[in-house]
Amino acid sequence: MPYQSFIPPRRTLMGPGPSDVYPNVLSALSRPTLGHLDPLFIQMMDELKALLQYAFQTSNPMTLAISAPGSAGMEACFVNLVEPGEKVIVCRNGVFGGRMLENVKRLGAEAVVVDSPWGRAVEVDKVAQAIKAHPDAKFLAFVHAETSTGALSDAKALCALAQAAGMLTIVDAVTSLGGVPVKVDEWGIDAIYSGSQKCLSCVPGLSPVSFSQKAVDKIKSRQTPVQSWFLDQSLVMGYWEGSGKRSYHHTAPVNALYALHEALVQLHNEGLEQSWLRHSQMHELLAGGLAKLGLELIVPEGERLPQLNTVRIPDGVDDGAVRARLLNDYNLEIGAGLGDLAGKAWRIGLMGYGARRENVTLCLAALAEVLGH
Amino acid sequence: MPYQSFIPPRRTLMGPGPSDVYPNVLSALSRPTLGHLDPLFIQMMDELKALLQYAFQTSNPMTLAISAPGSAGMEACFVNLVEPGEKVIVCRNGVFGGRMLENVKRLGAEAVVVDSPWGRAVEVDKVAQAIKAHPDAKFLAFVHAETSTGALSDAKALCALAQAAGMLTIVDAVTSLGGVPVKVDEWGIDAIYSGSQKCLSCVPGLSPVSFSQKAVDKIKSRQTPVQSWFLDQSLVMGYWEGSGKRSYHHTAPVNALYALHEALVQLHNEGLEQSWLRHSQMHELLAGGLAKLGLELIVPEGERLPQLNTVRIPDGVDDGAVRARLLNDYNLEIGAGLGDLAGKAWRIGLMGYGARRENVTLCLAALAEVLGH
Repeated sequence: MPYQSFIPPRRTLMGPGPSDVYPNVLSALSRPTLGHLDPLFIQMMDELKALLQYAFQTSNPMTLAISAPGSAGMEACFVNLVEPGEKVIVCRNGVFGGRMLENVKRLGAEAVVVDSPWGRAVEVDKVAQAIKAHPDAKFLAFVHAETSTGALSDAKALCALAQAAGMLTIVDAVTSLGGVPVKVDEWGIDAIYSGSQKCLSCVPGLSPVSFSQKAVDKIKSRQTPVQSWFLDQSLVMGYWEGSGKRSYHHTAPVNALYALHEALVQLHNEGLEQSWLRHSQMHELLAGGLAKLGLELIVPEGERLPQLNTVRIPDGVDDGAVRARLLNDYNLEIGAGLGDLAGKAWRIGLMGYGARRENVTLCLAALAEVLGH
Repeated sequence: MPYQSFIPPRRTLMGPGPSDVYPNVLSALSRPTLGHLDPLFIQMMDELKALLQYAFQTSNPMTLAISAPGSAGMEACFVNLVEPGEKVIVCRNGVFGGRMLENVKRLGAEAVVVDSPWGRAVEVDKVAQAIKAHPDAKFLAFVHAETSTGALSDAKALCALAQAAGMLTIVDAVTSLGGVPVKVDEWGIDAIYSGSQKCLSCVPGLSPVSFSQKAVDKIKSRQTPVQSWFLDQSLVMGYWEGSGKRSYHHTAPVNALYALHEALVQLHNEGLEQSWLRHSQMHELLAGGLAKLGLELIVPEGERLPQLNTVRIPDGVDDGAVRARLLNDYNLEIGAGLGDLAGKAWRIGLMGYGARRENVTLCLAALAEVLGH
């Protein structure tokens, strides 16, 4: 049986990620591979670190990209910071808060869950009560931008509560980074992870992370070794450290890091504020158009993520058939609902390079045709 | 401060990996990104699975690529199969056997270490004695091709010993897969992991793995959850399963999987036997040339990896200066020694696309010039 190269069609990616990838990021991917200890590659990594610090708005030296997707970034934050038996307050308003809980359980820590409704922001008052009720909790963990629902939570307020109580914060910024303000130093975030394939418009497979000095101190004072060798940040940093000899930990995903570098150069040269504004403007356009089609956003105004719009599927409309027609006839991908919203919602992403006028126009016009407007 | 794209030079990669990447693999990397649940992408993954089964010479249904480098593949094998308190016989004849030991310790299992000299194969007799002394051990773990030393161990004999004792085997094939025979079904290997960046000549970042039915049964009968959510293969398989609805686990590294598919198409179309032969022929050429330069291979004949040649650095020769001249003046990378061999050896890789005549000739001629022959 002969095998052939796989030649994918060009889709417009407007689901929950991967998002449309910048063409120059795809070009960067295919540049010649260097050795992972090559001095030129290490220079590139130093620059990549500076670019990640810019994206996260932080001066944390422990800022780098985990060599695996966002869910590994999540796990890296939990297994490095939290030790068995410690108490973590986990906010859950969608799938990814639930995944945080799973991480806490598997490492043998104790979780206190604060549930907020799906499609809504994390309820700050409820978190304040939980903090008061559990003064022995060491961590507050929450998802800034819930990819499963499109809700944006008030990271600044949540971090302020945690700080006042002497707790460390673990923040999921997979879908928020680059699309809405994320200010690690100003808000006092201690551990944060993101993904390459959302508003950074890089290919999937990497997870940018950053750890505050307090987080680093916590890691250094651990009584037990980190359960994962691959994700042990004290070892990983031996490779990412800017000064002196790099020590080998694992082989870095060289070409993927070229791509992330290129995506961050793009973000830097556009400017974070301009990127946030663009996402917001494209969201307004899309939301206006959806309303004209009689389609309703699930998340109330003020709690909406501009980069991820959760649309209620109208009664009598066949979810799968609509998405299949968009994909097959228009090469346009929108996302299905996830978890509690499966079959009830579509998720329309406007992330990074995907947040541009032609995408909004195509999506609205194609939806109108498919829905028979 | 303005940032620029990173434009790497074209190096000839003859270190311990990443190896020279096939040009068509680099092209495949930059093809348009599809959604990770796109039906066309899922078709590609089904084909990728069949190609991985070919490379591993197995019909194991649980054969896939972990979305992270080889060290995560190693960890996936240990944390899925081994439970806390279980006993594992770990063979150590270099850095990567030591890393296996680290994995066993961190998951709370008990390790029995069988040490063999660096630069030599794992001693089968010693392993037989350890198995006899520890009838309660459930696993035998060893490195088939030690990347730190260039020694090839007798995987077939080691697996036969384990099988006779009713033990499961965990095998590191990071550097062996594609370069020398690896026969998962014939030898009865239960869990095996490799890397994309060695003899497959794909970019670094993925770890092909395969699990036998006995391994799957062991995973299914676990008393405790797998400590890593990201690496939990019972969840990962929900996404890779060939039939029915794919369930979302994490976002697959779409473009990296295109590249792995392309590399495996290349391997399949060349044929495994031909690939093994080519590695062996190029090794003979290199070894003959090194001998003429008065350079000595550390590993004795019969235990040498054709794809990784460990050369003793002659007295009075400056290790770093030689490698820097090769890199800067010839764009040629060879590897430094690792662990016990740091400063004492060079590692010259002939892996995948790197195992070709022009590379051998360039390497020998450049070494001759730099060493002043």
